[in-house]
Amino acid sequence: MVPRLITLATDFGYRDPSVGIMKGVILGISPQARIVDLSHGLPPQDLIAAALALYGSVPFFPCGTIHVAVVDPGVGTERAAILIEAQGSFLIGPDNGIFGPVLDEKRPEKIIALTNDFYHIKPTSATFHGRDIFAPVAGHLSLGVPPEAFGNPVHTIEKLRWPTVSKTEQGVQGEIIYIDHFGNLITNVRACDLKAFPSDRFTLQLGDVSIAGIAHNYASARDGEYVAVLDSWGMLEIAVFKGNAHLSSGANVGDKFDIRKIGPPEEAP
Amino acid sequence: MVPRLITLATDFGYRDPSVGIMKGVILGISPQARIVDLSHGLPPQDLIAAALALYGSVPFFPCGTIHVAVVDPGVGTERAAILIEAQGSFLIGPDNGIFGPVLDEKRPEKIIALTNDFYHIKPTSATFHGRDIFAPVAGHLSLGVPPEAFGNPVHTIEKLRWPTVSKTEQGVQGEIIYIDHFGNLITNVRACDLKAFPSDRFTLQLGDVSIAGIAHNYASARDGEYVAVLDSWGMLEIAVFKGNAHLSSGANVGDKFDIRKIGPPEEAP
Amino acid sequence: MVPRLITLATDFGYRDPSVGIMKGVILGISPQARIVDLSHGLPPQDLIAAALALYGSVPFFPCGTIHVAVVDPGVGTERAAILIEAQGSFLIGPDNGIFGPVLDEKRPEKIIALTNDFYHIKPTSATFHGRDIFAPVAGHLSLGVPPEAFGNPVHTIEKLRWPTVSKTEQGVQGEIIYIDHFGNLITNVRACDLKAFPSDRFTLQLGDVSIAGIAHNYASARDGEYVAVLDSWGMLEIAVFKGNAHLSSGANVGDKFDIRKIGPPEEAP
Repeated sequence: MVPRLITLATDFGYRDPSVGIMKGVILGISPQARIVDLSHGLPPQDLIAAALALYGSVPFFPCGTIHVAVVDPGVGTERAAILIEAQGSFLIGPDNGIFGPVLDEKRPEKIIALTNDFYHIKPTSATFHGRDIFAPVAGHLSLGVPPEAFGNPVHTIEKLRWPTVSKTEQGVQGEIIYIDHFGNLITNVRACDLKAFPSDRFTLQLGDVSIAGIAHNYASARDGEYVAVLDSWGMLEIAVFKGNAHLSSGANVGDKFDIRKIGPPEEAP
Repeated sequence: MVPRLITLATDFGYRDPSVGIMKGVILGISPQARIVDLSHGLPPQDLIAAALALYGSVPFFPCGTIHVAVVDPGVGTERAAILIEAQGSFLIGPDNGIFGPVLDEKRPEKIIALTNDFYHIKPTSATFHGRDIFAPVAGHLSLGVPPEAFGNPVHTIEKLRWPTVSKTEQGVQGEIIYIDHFGNLITNVRACDLKAFPSDRFTLQLGDVSIAGIAHNYASARDGEYVAVLDSWGMLEIAVFKGNAHLSSGANVGDKFDIRKIGPPEEAP
Repeated sequence: MVPRLITLATDFGYRDPSVGIMKGVILGISPQARIVDLSHGLPPQDLIAAALALYGSVPFFPCGTIHVAVVDPGVGTERAAILIEAQGSFLIGPDNGIFGPVLDEKRPEKIIALTNDFYHIKPTSATFHGRDIFAPVAGHLSLGVPPEAFGNPVHTIEKLRWPTVSKTEQGVQGEIIYIDHFGNLITNVRACDLKAFPSDRFTLQLGDVSIAGIAHNYASARDGEYVAVLDSWGMLEIAVFKGNAHLSSGANVGDKFDIRKIGPPEEAP
């Protein structure tokens, strides 16, 4: 039997050997496991960034993949450790809301609290559950141990406070939720939120920055100009062509912006 | 059949899950593919840095390896996406010049424009061809799909503007083309450009910094001293032993320096 | 035969393709080798950080794993390149002390100086032994070449200057030896150094920062408060819950702190 593919997403960074240690634990249990890094540079303890990374990544992995995500400010507290089975894939990590967006409105088939410490490394530290709980559970799951073996079924998971798009008199108000490596500003506005706006009939206003409509790609702007695109995750993104929108605008996660409809061109009097 | 080895080099950084997503796409198509990261910390949109990374890496990989490189400021524009077969290896990425130096003067056996969208993810985004075009083509190629299947042959590729070494009255003038992780200044001067200079009979002048000849290794200098070495890529490199030449000198990519012959020791009058 | 697992730990960073090149060399020799990254973001030329990363990681890898570590300010000098066999695992790298802590007091079974250049890439550069010596030796070793083939046995290895915990009148004095990705301050004080101190009967004083006793986990403190924990490596660590102790305190590697016993609660007069 070929072990299931395992992905890892953490905020552990690239300085410490933490991720390597998790891989050592997995490969000690499941020597033929294949492990893929999603990202270990997630902003520290940023649950929305973690949720977004999973939301954008999981659909591109084969059915049966095990996704381990550890962004876990509550490690060592009473927060649960969970395993979710949904749509033929598996999600493992702390129960703090990071799995909400990738599940979307789909009901998970199974949610298991990881209470069976037979599968944990002992003594189990209070500061590194990635190594002591999540990695060994992923290793055993990759070999075909059934989800039920790892603990008791539970019926709900924690919800994430995801910023909502709100309606305004002239359109909608969105919010920046993530800044990517290129300084592009990722927002909570999705394509479906813009259905009422023909793509060339609105203005986006973020502080002093004003952008007319949605462009097809970054290069639709001239060097150094702002541009709004629907990015590869289907979300509205504000960028500067060959530049860094985060540094240019000073805008940050949590900043709000307005999208306003423009009326039909006025007729000359 | 064992799938061909695949390498990935991008400027996507380590914050976003972009590279992980590309691997998900590849492994969905070619589950046994082996994937190696060359670097994902290439300076954003720096074509010369990408070209240099390929130039330094490709010769150390086994014959048949597929090298995918995505440094692609023109994504979504009319720039072509290409697959090159040369010397038994494969190069996949945007046609923007990054493959020039690794091909050197060797003629590629095949150049294919990736026009057959049967092998692309659809809908194909205008902002992430790494995921939608380059990754799936690499996945299928690793399984033995012939290059011709991916599109039409073309006969030329874009050229990169590579800074040239110029002759001066007393020697040559070179240019800094890349700054590495240690702050070492990598230059466009190769060993062959220095054939006319016995290694101890010239002076390198970069701004205020003056270096006498070429040393065998970094440790030939004292702590904190400048040293010039021929690095492991065969290129002249300016370093500070146990220090950071970039920060010490303030020198940056694009800065020029002079190499001047010193005459034979003058005889005493 | 399944090749042995290989890990890589370096200070090469994530900008240059150096680590990718080492993997190319290994896979050219041992195409089925499995390679795991421990970390490539180790602080440049910081031997203690490298030693600590190995100390924390090696015990979590399966028996027989080959650990290659390249933090090597003396590359190209007379410092030896070595291969150590101990407890059924293998360590490969420069002989500069980085393997001391992971060996602890255990005697290695074999120490081999990598003098047999049959297994090196030629011409061997003076600046990149990771590529030219350590990677090819790891590749051949993973295939079952016996350690003795790579060179001559030696009897001692270099010692690292590891900061010692010293006794004071009222307790002990420790030192910060590493700062992790979260800004947590890792110290040289181990659980065994604190045996004389019931966990709630001492005070830790680092500059202006005063911490009472050891907590079970980070979340025992309130947001922004300092906390001392025994971390997942068994070492005393100073953290700020949901914060960055390095930035908050200004404390750095090499800074010392005092642990003082508190007497039993004084009786009221």
